[in-house]
Amino acid sequence: MNADDETLLAELLEGKHRALARTISKIENRAPGYRELISELYAHTGEAEVIGITGSPGAGKSTLVDKLAETYRERGETVGVIAIDPSSPFTGGAVLGDRIRMASTVGDMDVFVRSMSARGTLGGLSTATADAVKAMDAFGKDKIIIETVGAGQNEIDIVRTADTVAVLVPPGSGDDVQTLKAGILEIADVFVVNKADRPGTDRTVQELREMIELDSGGGFGGSGHHGADAGSDGGGSAVATQDDPEKRATWTTPIVETVATDGTGVDEFIDELAAHREYLVDSGARAEKARQRSAEEIRTLLREDVHTMLEAELERAGGIDDLAAAVAAGETDPYTVADEVLSPVEDCLAELETRNP
Amino acid sequence: MNADDETLLAELLEGKHRALARTISKIENRAPGYRELISELYAHTGEAEVIGITGSPGAGKSTLVDKLAETYRERGETVGVIAIDPSSPFTGGAVLGDRIRMASTVGDMDVFVRSMSARGTLGGLSTATADAVKAMDAFGKDKIIIETVGAGQNEIDIVRTADTVAVLVPPGSGDDVQTLKAGILEIADVFVVNKADRPGTDRTVQELREMIELDSGGGFGGSGHHGADAGSDGGGSAVATQDDPEKRATWTTPIVETVATDGTGVDEFIDELAAHREYLVDSGARAEKARQRSAEEIRTLLREDVHTMLEAELERAGGIDDLAAAVAAGETDPYTVADEVLSPVEDCLAELETRNP
Repeated sequence: MNADDETLLAELLEGKHRALARTISKIENRAPGYRELISELYAHTGEAEVIGITGSPGAGKSTLVDKLAETYRERGETVGVIAIDPSSPFTGGAVLGDRIRMASTVGDMDVFVRSMSARGTLGGLSTATADAVKAMDAFGKDKIIIETVGAGQNEIDIVRTADTVAVLVPPGSGDDVQTLKAGILEIADVFVVNKADRPGTDRTVQELREMIELDSGGGFGGSGHHGADAGSDGGGSAVATQDDPEKRATWTTPIVETVATDGTGVDEFIDELAAHREYLVDSGARAEKARQRSAEEIRTLLREDVHTMLEAELERAGGIDDLAAAVAAGETDPYTVADEVLSPVEDCLAELETRNP
Repeated sequence: MNADDETLLAELLEGKHRALARTISKIENRAPGYRELISELYAHTGEAEVIGITGSPGAGKSTLVDKLAETYRERGETVGVIAIDPSSPFTGGAVLGDRIRMASTVGDMDVFVRSMSARGTLGGLSTATADAVKAMDAFGKDKIIIETVGAGQNEIDIVRTADTVAVLVPPGSGDDVQTLKAGILEIADVFVVNKADRPGTDRTVQELREMIELDSGGGFGGSGHHGADAGSDGGGSAVATQDDPEKRATWTTPIVETVATDGTGVDEFIDELAAHREYLVDSGARAEKARQRSAEEIRTLLREDVHTMLEAELERAGGIDDLAAAVAAGETDPYTVADEVLSPVEDCLAELETRNP
């Protein structure tokens, strides 16, 4: 790591927001040295609670995230928000502008908001998000909120990097709940019916409840009913049973009703997020999730690195254009080309294997 | 190549259908030695006309393909059909059974039908299809028809390996043409409105025509009108102009009406396929397509090979499970792990670079 990056790291660990912002920019741009920087950051991570919030456009995600951040801050917690917009590369800036205003209205930088978009990040948005979370975690943010716009596969992959995922559902026709079914329901740890002062709320809550009951024993964890008061009764035994809210081995997705614009239900939402975190720790699911995430991160990085290596080997073998032209002209074939490009690498590895069997 | 594969190759080149069937099975199963076999096949390919046929379920693809194959055979051409069903892994066998009956009704094996499904092929269906086409090409089939069920991204990738792509549209509500728009229209070289004896045919043809005109100059090639008699008037000048059907530099997607069940329009369909092939050759697009396809095949093979190599390196470095656990425990981080796994490979390559700069 060069001297500049060492200064940057030191300043980030001291809690300077400017250093955090610069680090995330380095992550987005894959600036030289960013890998060593993140390597160093890792040792300082693991304390933050990472919350993913997703749902269809119009569900009121931004408003709820802002209110959630504000409430955490009032409770003395520091908060980082990563707003992700993979589908529309042009709104990133606008969202960022709005949210920075929000943060400064709050009066300090304890709510640090950062937008990331497909445009902004070279390489995978999912990797960049995970790295930005690490930076905020090392910085010392207590709560990190990943907010995604839309509900496509990309968004699902990104929001899954959180410990706890809240899926927002707007009240309305039953069609909404039905269309949600594909993919996004499986990742919900908490359902939030926001705009709960609007007509159709009861029906949407009812439909979600039926779906959870239908699914219980399957993707939504256990079959026990999970009350809104979970985790709020102190004391009690330490024996882990399904009915003991202190040491639960299963999780049934709760449904919270909120009105983000006036803050209704936000405290209950926070209780459910805390209860889920407790469940993750007690059940061992948090450690298992961390392992899975690490494995995925390793594989993703290896794929990216090897891709770069492959391109270099292709260049050395004559360049893809010439190689393809030779195949098209019948002078060789793709299998022979692939063998020729990779045989130096394979020979190297075989030699290594002989030296260190 | 071992002795068995040499015999297999010799028998395939002699025109034994059993050898062709065994070769395609080897491709599907990635049986040991299949790569060398395909390498050898490549030298004998390049003559066949490869036609891709796709469209939404219910458009009558199978019936049209059967009729097309039969008509080619009556004209003295040999035909191979590859029926692809990536989405539903269980219909493969049934389709194969039906089509083999069809082939035997025709009375000989000059229509060789082979089903491939996601279930049947280890690795990518797209690569397996391209390899099966090469096997049929080397065997000496004059016409190779790739038929895909459904119209998802997989099907589009597969059907693009053909020289000429026909998209079937059933007559009916305008909604059909509208929903087709996403992705599949761009790949159409010929539109076929099959079941053209049904109500709604005129309207569907009209809607397709408007769409083609709207799009002309863009994805559908040039703006010249393309008559159904293209290529059928012999002689003429050798100057390449847009109005000269002999040497066209642009292609406007024609619309053919067929009734596959009684063979109506199949001759005209064959004329359009021939005209498109002529256009591809004359314009140089065929050579360009072949180059692009070769480049894509090389990259796909490299990705697959490197993936295998990576898994081996991961094993050597301790296995992904242990590595992920070490990251989750805070003992290391994904970037360091990725570097450690790949550094032997990179060192090897650097050494090579020094030896042969």
